[in-house]
Amino acid sequence: MFTYRAMLLGFVFAGLVHPGHAAEPGPNPVKAVLEKQVADWNRGDLEGFMAGYWKSDELRFFSGSTVTTGWDATMDRYRKKYKEDGKEMGQLAFSDLEVQTLSPDAAFVRGKFKLVTTKETSQGLFTLLVKKFPEGWRIVHDHTS
Amino acid sequence: MFTYRAMLLGFVFAGLVHPGHAAEPGPNPVKAVLEKQVADWNRGDLEGFMAGYWKSDELRFFSGSTVTTGWDATMDRYRKKYKEDGKEMGQLAFSDLEVQTLSPDAAFVRGKFKLVTTKETSQGLFTLLVKKFPEGWRIVHDHTS
Repeated sequence: MFTYRAMLLGFVFAGLVHPGHAAEPGPNPVKAVLEKQVADWNRGDLEGFMAGYWKSDELRFFSGSTVTTGWDATMDRYRKKYKEDGKEMGQLAFSDLEVQTLSPDAAFVRGKFKLVTTKETSQGLFTLLVKKFPEGWRIVHDHTS
Repeated sequence: MFTYRAMLLGFVFAGLVHPGHAAEPGPNPVKAVLEKQVADWNRGDLEGFMAGYWKSDELRFFSGSTVTTGWDATMDRYRKKYKEDGKEMGQLAFSDLEVQTLSPDAAFVRGKFKLVTTKETSQGLFTLLVKKFPEGWRIVHDHTS
């Protein structure tokens, strides 16, 4: 009995000392990456938005029938589409977001997006594979249509 | 030394008795499901093709900006598009297929498809989440564009 109570106290104490290690309380870390992307996008911070993607030549971005390979090319694609003269980033929102954690370092995400600019409203679907790296969770594959 | 050799023999014997449990030799089981789908499709067997999908109301099929929910609705969609009067299934091929096993019962797949009918050739991209069930590996989410 003493051992059991001591063990319990030990756990509680460990929780107080390292609250961040206690079973990841609070918001889902994958959702947090996407929420940060939306917030960054909506104040026109494309670099901040792009930080949600894996900074690797192996990043894949599927849009319609086009494959973009690598973080640099994906950044270029976004810059040409939303940052060039006459372009605007507008206001982005996600809905029907579902996150499935598949392993300690892989998650699957699907949802809908809506992008409203002064000229048009576009909406569609996305499917993501998100992986955990030393720097945090990052999108490694994005299929948008 | 004797113990080590006995253990080795034990493993070899277990392998002979239960060859199916010995580290899944031969072709990737997820690829095998997709190869069967292509073979079924190309001889006009839509039911066979549909057996690759999870027979559940939770199956999701994203095509362009449209969500289809559940196996039955997905089957209906395929039937209307490829089996009604004047429609044809044509010849399907996958390319650039990549399978990432994420856990013992989840895999991520991406690739390109090409569908050739007597009237047109269409091509595009797909992203799949595939899960292992008692009946085998089944697609639980398909995003096609």
